Amino acid sequence: MLKLLNEHACFGGLQRFYSFDSAAIGLPMRFSVYLPPGAEGEQLPVLFYLAGLTCTEETFMTKAGAQRVAAEEGLILVAPDTSPRGAGMPGETDSWDFGAGAGFYVDATQEPWSRHYRMYSHILELRELVLANLPADPARVGIFGHSMGGHGALAMALRNPALFRSVSAFAPIAAPMRCPWGKKAFGGYLGADEAAWRAYDATELMAAMPTAPFPGGILIDQGLADKFLAEQLYPEAFEEACARAGQPLELRRHAGYDHGYYFISTFIEDHLRFHRRQLG
Amino acid sequence: MLKLLNEHACFGGLQRFYSFDSAAIGLPMRFSVYLPPGAEGEQLPVLFYLAGLTCTEETFMTKAGAQRVAAEEGLILVAPDTSPRGAGMPGETDSWDFGAGAGFYVDATQEPWSRHYRMYSHILELRELVLANLPADPARVGIFGHSMGGHGALAMALRNPALFRSVSAFAPIAAPMRCPWGKKAFGGYLGADEAAWRAYDATELMAAMPTAPFPGGILIDQGLADKFLAEQLYPEAFEEACARAGQPLELRRHAGYDHGYYFISTFIEDHLRFHRRQLG
Repeated sequence: MLKLLNEHACFGGLQRFYSFDSAAIGLPMRFSVYLPPGAEGEQLPVLFYLAGLTCTEETFMTKAGAQRVAAEEGLILVAPDTSPRGAGMPGETDSWDFGAGAGFYVDATQEPWSRHYRMYSHILELRELVLANLPADPARVGIFGHSMGGHGALAMALRNPALFRSVSAFAPIAAPMRCPWGKKAFGGYLGADEAAWRAYDATELMAAMPTAPFPGGILIDQGLADKFLAEQLYPEAFEEACARAGQPLELRRHAGYDHGYYFISTFIEDHLRFHRRQLG
Repeated sequence: MLKLLNEHACFGGLQRFYSFDSAAIGLPMRFSVYLPPGAEGEQLPVLFYLAGLTCTEETFMTKAGAQRVAAEEGLILVAPDTSPRGAGMPGETDSWDFGAGAGFYVDATQEPWSRHYRMYSHILELRELVLANLPADPARVGIFGHSMGGHGALAMALRNPALFRSVSAFAPIAAPMRCPWGKKAFGGYLGADEAAWRAYDATELMAAMPTAPFPGGILIDQGLADKFLAEQLYPEAFEEACARAGQPLELRRHAGYDHGYYFISTFIEDHLRFHRRQLG
């Protein structure tokens, strides 16, 4: 079922790339896994990373520098791709912010996207697949992500706090219904009725919470030299929703840092250690 | 003279990309610099990294995870490109192991390559440029590299031990005159007379040393699952030449590791700390 594409020794553990026939997507999908050393016979905590626009299952593993800390902390890392590939939709590769590389972690309801663009279900499917095939502890699964993937991680965790027990993000699209990227994606995948969008908007989801879903806190890092901050990200909207729900949030604003992996690599260690503490 | 192309905050310091009109190459060339935090008013040690086949000035800075340790150690990192770009030579981009992305750190003597393919002089030129424009200490410059760049670093250091005071390598092409990559490159850039090749072959250079040029030692890491090891790299030839010259060499052989950046990132910290100790 799982096909191992390649494997590389890394910090005493194994960096792997897999493919499998995804039932959620209806096409083969790739993902990457970092297995820390000493994984034999143990059930380890797992951390899913959802990447941003234009990225693949490889981006995080080559650029973030996460394996060093994952090896120390005994964390399995998993990174999916950001969309179906080769679905054959008209115009699929015309935009960098819609279609291929831009699945936005939603289950599309609009034709033709609804045939394959079901990334929300894909992440849940991948969680089951990882738990069934790797030495992973189902009670200790966390999720984080960057930009579009920060949105995906927050929405996924807020809708499934029993499945993802810890959540953090780098420069997430924190209120996608309010920003151009989100409006384009949600409109295209989910249709014009904004009521359907709320199920995927972290700020709307948090605003509807009766109590804090993550009493141990949520961690978000945001660079203040991020050129997408003002128009696309809205961390302050999510911050306000957290305050209303009584949800502890550590939103760290970093002067000088931008939207890229030089920013992510600087703070990746803090995120891995945060999840490791939350997951126990 | 130096044109700053872009800049990113990273581990409290600055990741920069520059271009300049290279006199050695006769074309604009790019390079990258990592400036650690607290560089103002000080003269810091500098470490040059020469990359392997197909790489650019960006590869090391995005994939190796070196900035974290450079920030801690107060080391400036500099990474050149691996060849001229857009030189317009016929067939320049036909091979991945000759021409663009494969300059081999030699000054070509054969037409048409001799017009622009002068990467040996380019590295020396870049050293001067960095010393003139960045807070860099001319007495504390080291060099290292990977594969083709490991060859480049060893040859550069052995020919200029007063300019590069410390040297290390990951999976270097340690005896290029003996391997297919080296024969193709040296033959194409330097002509058929093998006497001219010796000036760029680390094993030949070391074999001709009357005394150890780096009494503090040379560090080489080599993966034993490296698919290029048997045919292309010959670390054992360099090891033997070091033994004859009385040159201390730490050649570490790592079971399971291959030729790529998952290998490099695993051991990058050891190399940076090695150079920092050597440079004082």
